[in-house]
Amino acid sequence: MNNRPIDILEKSKGKRVMIKLRNMTNVSGEIKAYDLHLNMWLDNAKITDTNTNIEKEVGKILIRGDNITYIAPSK
Amino acid sequence: MNNRPIDILEKSKGKRVMIKLRNMTNVSGEIKAYDLHLNMWLDNAKITDTNTNIEKEVGKILIRGDNITYIAPSK
Amino acid sequence: MNNRPIDILEKSKGKRVMIKLRNMTNVSGEIKAYDLHLNMWLDNAKITDTNTNIEKEVGKILIRGDNITYIAPSK
Amino acid sequence: MNNRPIDILEKSKGKRVMIKLRNMTNVSGEIKAYDLHLNMWLDNAKITDTNTNIEKEVGKILIRGDNITYIAPSK
Amino acid sequence: MNNRPIDILEKSKGKRVMIKLRNMTNVSGEIKAYDLHLNMWLDNAKITDTNTNIEKEVGKILIRGDNITYIAPSK
Amino acid sequence: MNNRPIDILEKSKGKRVMIKLRNMTNVSGEIKAYDLHLNMWLDNAKITDTNTNIEKEVGKILIRGDNITYIAPSK
Amino acid sequence: MNNRPIDILEKSKGKRVMIKLRNMTNVSGEIKAYDLHLNMWLDNAKITDTNTNIEKEVGKILIRGDNITYIAPSK
Repeated sequence: MNNRPIDILEKSKGKRVMIKLRNMTNVSGEIKAYDLHLNMWLDNAKITDTNTNIEKEVGKILIRGDNITYIAPSK
Repeated sequence: MNNRPIDILEKSKGKRVMIKLRNMTNVSGEIKAYDLHLNMWLDNAKITDTNTNIEKEVGKILIRGDNITYIAPSK
Repeated sequence: MNNRPIDILEKSKGKRVMIKLRNMTNVSGEIKAYDLHLNMWLDNAKITDTNTNIEKEVGKILIRGDNITYIAPSK
Repeated sequence: MNNRPIDILEKSKGKRVMIKLRNMTNVSGEIKAYDLHLNMWLDNAKITDTNTNIEKEVGKILIRGDNITYIAPSK
Repeated sequence: MNNRPIDILEKSKGKRVMIKLRNMTNVSGEIKAYDLHLNMWLDNAKITDTNTNIEKEVGKILIRGDNITYIAPSK
Repeated sequence: MNNRPIDILEKSKGKRVMIKLRNMTNVSGEIKAYDLHLNMWLDNAKITDTNTNIEKEVGKILIRGDNITYIAPSK
Repeated sequence: MNNRPIDILEKSKGKRVMIKLRNMTNVSGEIKAYDLHLNMWLDNAKITDTNTNIEKEVGKILIRGDNITYIAPSK
């Protein structure tokens, strides 16, 4: 096992990712910092309510890792 | 990994943040203290029920960290 | 980080606090004892069902900390 | 912090308590034994479904602590 | 604190108990083995769906402890 | 306490078991490997949606243990 | 106990697997990395909403292990 799953984040530092939360919310932003629990500090973040598709820009944001379902780097 | 996600809070000490809880509630207030579980002591806190948009001022408040989805410092 | 979030409780020992539980219940009472998990022993406690607003006086009560959303000392 | 929250149970050994569970159930009974997780052994226990108010006598019962919202000693 | 809550199970080894699970299911059976997490091995087990009252005999069963609300030995 | 609950699985190695998951799903298959968290590797597995009774054959499967309610060996 | 459940993943490195998440979502992709919590890095991933059957291609993805119900390698 050469790679660890979390290495996907190291390669995405400073780049934009899309994060799916458990509560029908998507957050996108640039990774500023992360830890092993997947606590994430994002800059220039946007929050999307996936029920209504309403977007909100929030600047900096700290996401508590245990709310995260998955993280997808921008292609 | 130079920064830790939690450093976003250190830079916000004494400043106003908006905290999204899991139960359709937002809390805003000034950070007085926090810990690694994201337990938060806020001063001059306001609680908003996101279903009804009713706001309530509560002064000091201690939030148990595991109810928190994300924390956004004021821009 | 000079203060810990839990210090808010030390200053409230013997005073009345309002505790929001996860299950649509509020409990108010005087803090007799607490621990780091936010397990709380309250005296002269009152339980309010936030759906019906029905209040019940229960005297002493022990709340298991992991049911707590937030704790607000009386102003 | 002289008292621990759990001390409320030590003073109630052999006495009747009312326990609120998370799933719309109340259990009352005499405390025979408890531990730090709030696992509880009750004697002469009665279970009440709080939806229907139907009561059932069960004799001895072991409650797994993580189902407990709060414990109130009889006044 | 002379007794531990789990001692209620030691006295019930080989005897029939009723176990209430979180998901509207009751399981009864004879205790063959248990551990501190309340993982339970029952023999001659019967599963009852408490919505429909339909019973099913399953022989041996291993219950993962964190699904258990309470355990009541047969009177 | 001579037996451990998990010993029920050791005796079922290579044999067919029925596993009840929390999300209205049953999985049956032959035990290839398991661990103390009840993570299970099954061969020749079949998944049944207990709402629709639709069955699907999936071959090998790894079940994350914390989704499991109970495991019943074939009689 | 010669095999560990997680060994099923080692044999699937670089191959396509189907992952069932708790929230009505399936993710398929090639295993790039995994760890003992079942955190998974997949390449060439596809996400399917099992309510609507709508598929989305996302490239790389990191899944937080505690959202996973089961993992089935392609036959």
